[in-house]
Parts: sequence; C-alpha cells; structure tokens
Amino acid sequence: MTEMRPPLDGIRVVDLTRVLAGPFCTMLLGDMGAEVIKVEGHEGDPVRRQGTLKDGLSWYFAAFNRNKKSVVIDLKTDAGKELLARLIETADVLVDNYRPGVLAKMGFGAERLAELNPQLVTCNVNGYGSTGPYVDRPAFDFVVQAMSGFMSVTGAEDQPPMRTGLPITDLVAGLYAAFGVVNALHARRHNGRGQHVDSAMANGILSLMAYLASEHFATGQLPPRTGNDHPLVAPYGLFTASDGEVAVAPSNDTVLRRFLRAIELEHLLDDPRFSTNEARFPRRAELRALIDARMRTESQAHWIEVLNRAGVPSGKVQDLAEVFADPQVRAQEMVIDVARAGAAPVRMLGFPVKLSQTPCTVRLPAPELGEHDDEILGPLRRA
Amino acid sequence: MTEMRPPLDGIRVVDLTRVLAGPFCTMLLGDMGAEVIKVEGHEGDPVRRQGTLKDGLSWYFAAFNRNKKSVVIDLKTDAGKELLARLIETADVLVDNYRPGVLAKMGFGAERLAELNPQLVTCNVNGYGSTGPYVDRPAFDFVVQAMSGFMSVTGAEDQPPMRTGLPITDLVAGLYAAFGVVNALHARRHNGRGQHVDSAMANGILSLMAYLASEHFATGQLPPRTGNDHPLVAPYGLFTASDGEVAVAPSNDTVLRRFLRAIELEHLLDDPRFSTNEARFPRRAELRALIDARMRTESQAHWIEVLNRAGVPSGKVQDLAEVFADPQVRAQEMVIDVARAGAAPVRMLGFPVKLSQTPCTVRLPAPELGEHDDEILGPLRRA
Repeated sequence: MTEMRPPLDGIRVVDLTRVLAGPFCTMLLGDMGAEVIKVEGHEGDPVRRQGTLKDGLSWYFAAFNRNKKSVVIDLKTDAGKELLARLIETADVLVDNYRPGVLAKMGFGAERLAELNPQLVTCNVNGYGSTGPYVDRPAFDFVVQAMSGFMSVTGAEDQPPMRTGLPITDLVAGLYAAFGVVNALHARRHNGRGQHVDSAMANGILSLMAYLASEHFATGQLPPRTGNDHPLVAPYGLFTASDGEVAVAPSNDTVLRRFLRAIELEHLLDDPRFSTNEARFPRRAELRALIDARMRTESQAHWIEVLNRAGVPSGKVQDLAEVFADPQVRAQEMVIDVARAGAAPVRMLGFPVKLSQTPCTVRLPAPELGEHDDEILGPLRRA
Repeated sequence: MTEMRPPLDGIRVVDLTRVLAGPFCTMLLGDMGAEVIKVEGHEGDPVRRQGTLKDGLSWYFAAFNRNKKSVVIDLKTDAGKELLARLIETADVLVDNYRPGVLAKMGFGAERLAELNPQLVTCNVNGYGSTGPYVDRPAFDFVVQAMSGFMSVTGAEDQPPMRTGLPITDLVAGLYAAFGVVNALHARRHNGRGQHVDSAMANGILSLMAYLASEHFATGQLPPRTGNDHPLVAPYGLFTASDGEVAVAPSNDTVLRRFLRAIELEHLLDDPRFSTNEARFPRRAELRALIDARMRTESQAHWIEVLNRAGVPSGKVQDLAEVFADPQVRAQEMVIDVARAGAAPVRMLGFPVKLSQTPCTVRLPAPELGEHDDEILGPLRRA
C-alpha cells in the first residue's frame, strides 16, 4: 500500500504576505505539508524585527514562519517581477495580503496570473473584502474589532465596549483563507483549474456572531453586554473558592442540578425562589452569595475536580504562565521547542488540529532572509 | 472544458453533531458543496427549540443548519446502529462532537469504522483533546475561555479578566475541524485512505495567542490587560469626535505621521515631549487630550472618511444593528435572506470565504426533522 503523505505534500505555495493574517494562513498550509516559499524584499518581513529577539531571532517571527522557505526578490524591479512570474509558473497557490487591487497594479492581475498558470489558486487576505465602499481602506485588527460588532458584545454591563488583546480578526481571516485555499485545491480534481479565494478580516469575525446575529435578525434587539455573566441563565459565571475564583457553566437544568448536588445545595431547587430560571434570574445576586458561602469552604482545585467529575463544566481563569504549565496543554503538545543551531531552542505553540496518520510536524524552522535563494531561484534563473 | 463544481461536490458527510461547534463545522463543509446528512434522534438537535422561533422555526437552528439534510435514527437501538453502519459505508466523512471515546462505546470505534469504510475521514470536535488528564471533562465555551488564557488578555487594566459574548472557542474549533477534514480528504488522493481529525476547543483558541504567546515564551512575562489601549504604542485606541468615538490604530511611525498630519497636529512630532514613542507613551493621557480637542471639532463620519483616505485605519464602534446596516457588510453579502414556503424569509449571516468560480450558495434551507428519511435511508433499508 502507498504510504500516507501529508495532505498538502507536493503543493507549492508562493507567499507574498507580511506580518500576521497572511503569514498565519501560509503557516497553516505549511504545517499541513505544503512547500511555502516566502518572498521577501531586501528589508525582509517587518516581523523579523518585531517582538523580543533572542540570539538575533524574533520569536514572534519564528512562530509564524515555521515550515517556510525564504527567497529575496525585489518586486520594484522588472527583473524581480520577471523572476516572480517564473516562480508562479511552478506553483499551485499564490497568497498575498496587499490591499485588493495592489497585486494587479504590480502587473499580476487575474488575467495575467491565469495565463502564467491556469491551475493556480490565488488568495488575497484583506481587511474588508475586494468589493464595496471600503475596498481601499487600510485595515487593522483593533478597528475591525470595533466595526464588526465584536466589541459591542464584549465587556461589563455598565462599561463601554471592549476589544480582546488577541489579534482575533487577523487570525480568523488567516484561518478562513487557509480553509478556502485547501477547498480550491480540492476543487481542482474536477477540471484542473484554479480560482481566486478572498478572505476578509471583517467577514471572518462577523461570521462568528453566531446566535447573537440570529437573535438580532429574529427580534431586532441588540444583545446586551453582560461581562462574565450569562445574559439569560443563573447561576452561571465566576464563583469564589477559598483560594480564588472558579468558572462554572451550568447551561441547562440537568447540568444545574448536577452542580447544586455536587455543592450540596440541591435543596435550593425545591425552594420556589430558586426552582425555575425565571425565578432565579432576578435573584441571581442572592443565589450567588449562597453558592459562594458554600464554595469558600474548599479550594479551587477541589471544586474543579468535584464539578467536572459530576459532569459540570468548570475550570480556573488562567494566565499564560498557568496555561502553558497546565498538564492538559502539555499532554496535547501545544507547547513545542524547535531546535536552533548554536542557540537555545525556540519555544512556540503546537498544532491545533491533530491528524492521526499525517500529524503536523516542524519540517523546517523559520528561515533566514533569503536562505533558499539558490535552491528555489537558482533553477529559474538558469532556465 | 469540464465545468467547475463546488469544492466538496460529491462528498457525503454523516453528521452526528449537536448544538454549536460540530454543526458549525458541518455547515462550513455543506457551504463548500458537501452533502451533509444530519443524523438526529426522535427529539432532534436541542437547538431546534432554542432562541427565538418564528413560524415554528428557530432562526438560530436555521442559520447553523443550512445546506444539510436531516434523517432520524435512534442510536440507542441495535436497528438504529445497524442503519448508521450502512449509512457510514456510503460516506466520505463522519463528524461527531461527543466527548472522546463515546462513539467507540456506542460500537463505532476506530477499528470498526475502518472496516466499514477504509476511505472514511472521521472527525471529533471536543473540549480538551482526546488524550491527557482532562479527556473526560465536559467542556463549555465560557470555561474554555477562562482556562485558555483568552480572558486573561481581555478587559480593562484595573478590572478582572473578561470573556467575550461570542462562543468563540466553539466556533474556532468548528472552523479548525472543517479545515482538518478538507485536508484529510485532500490527502486521500495519495492512497485513498481516510484518517482521524481531532479538533479541541482549548487547542483552537490557544493557537490564536499569537505574539502574546511568543513574547511570553521569550521573556517569561505576562501580557498586561490594557482595555482598548495598545500595551506599547501611543497614541492608539478610541478618540472623541463631536458625536461619538472613533477607533484609530496608528501602529507604526509612518501611519502615526499620516494620522497627526490629517488632524493638523503633525507639529507635535517636532516637540521633544512627543517625538518618539518612548517619550509619548508615559504622556499618553496628555496626548489624547490634545487629539480629542482637535477631533471634537468634527463628526465621526468626517474623521473616518478623512483618516482612511490618508491611509490611517479608522472606524466606529458599531452595535449589531449598525453592523448589518453598514454598506460594506451589505456589499459583501454578509446578510442573506433564505426563502421559506408560507413564511417570511429567514435572515442569516452570509459566507465569509469568497471563491471566484464556485461561490458558496444556500442549496438547501435548514431541514425539518427527518425530512430526508426516505431519500437517504430508503435505499439503505431496501438494500
């Protein structure tokens, strides 16, 4: 039997992206086995100089550019453009995160690309999409969080809308772009033709509005901001153990009964003041005080163990040091160390999707600028 | 030339998922052209009864179950399990979001599934992954937001960690699961064999920690919570126009100069108190007051227009009503209406990834419970 090969083995990706959303997309493709060729100018991706450098290497750059090769091409020159054209002829995928239309202005419009390589899947990761009134606007994660409604549903009830510190709109756009590219590659089995994939930060984050969007469409009402509490269900949220808070999410009556039984307060459900969610919700402060009084008698670890065993979702609010020390995170290999000649290994996040037969691996550490010029560009120059 | 067909045309997905993360995964596969067969018990997916019902239909259910067929199989009976086995023989993909190991206990372990159908791609969307100490824990979005570090980097500086109101960990896990499945389908071209895909809510959200994780690994320090401000750069964040706030993200010196020029405060960069980020950051309140004084002279719309034209990312903090009225969101067709016989059309979110030749469409509205029993199960019963 033929041996299993990584999903994107044999797929060559030409990667014109910079900074974050685009490089995250091509990293996901590289992790799945694609040969990703990162094309940089003489100055290199700015992220090479961002964040903390250790032994001359940005760990931020290292994390987002594993499983990639680097070549230097000056796309401001005709010779550079000609070289890119030759490279595109050898590729399956071309990804850029310029603003829509910029690549065409550089001489690589859709028509030219299809001429160069009719099988090519092209992908643009952008801010607001490639049509519409905002097509030329520059985008940045914080602004997209503001415009998309994400901030409007995040934060405390009596406080203003709140962003998250994660560059969530970049990363979701990069993930959707990678999903689109693999779909377009798979579609080639029908007739061998490539097509264009458009992934916008604004569209990606908006697609995650989920039932908040459905409820708004159905009722016309706006979802309230409710901090860490559930807008409709009580008890729910953070409760107080002897040594800190415990997050508990009893999302329905079955799980609520398990919760109250586990903390020996099941009798509350016989009390008309607490027997239905309708009765409980206006008395949620009172209910919380009763639960906290009981939970303060034991530690976080105790309750998290007891509640999960009883089938009640529960855990601690962890900071990143606690997260990366968490035995589950370690068991899932979500922290990996990538060896580096003559320097300490580079620590980075592991692989979020686990494939049983072709698991993702780090085949290549993040490349030095132009490290693969000879290997990749040499044959094209000689041709 | 053969015509283009949707990427997953001809792919049959048997869908055992409920509620959110799993159904989002299979919706993404259905949107890309797969035939998704939702297997429900006699009671149906609980989401059929959740959220606001209009003319008897939950719009939340409708939004997450477009492009699916529904069959009723009672998996508690031997006859039901036998029927599922027959259905699996006809499928390319099997997705479930039971806790790891539950499907095996139901009689569908990896070995049996491979016997039934060696080409089958299987996928489990779960909370914490299928190995490690938390494998049997029940998971829920709020708890995973707490444990993953997401909350620790969200919220105001002087306030506790904050969740987002979006079920972000469910949806990211569903998206990664769909990405994994399409990769595993594409990998079959090498030798025709399926494999297992594991997508955990905890791993998915953790993978989005991005440079926050890199910086923590490189320095051992914890990222601060900084509300809507940038942890290192000033000016940045929300500024005050005559009729409300404007989000502005001048992420580097070039964009900052454009910003200050556009609001006619470029001279500040010649003032030693504001000429470098190092000087500006401790004086950010003072700087904000100067900027607000200028921006209060004009409206939000004015500044958003002026700033974007100048190449400065800028926009309003919008609530969902404003988002869905936004001309860009409309131009991107991110709000769609799905016709419904004898009732008002169902409004839902559009498609986040745009493919040029095979755009996603709603081929099927969300199914009635068991609507496709005859079509799908009939041939299996007669065989």
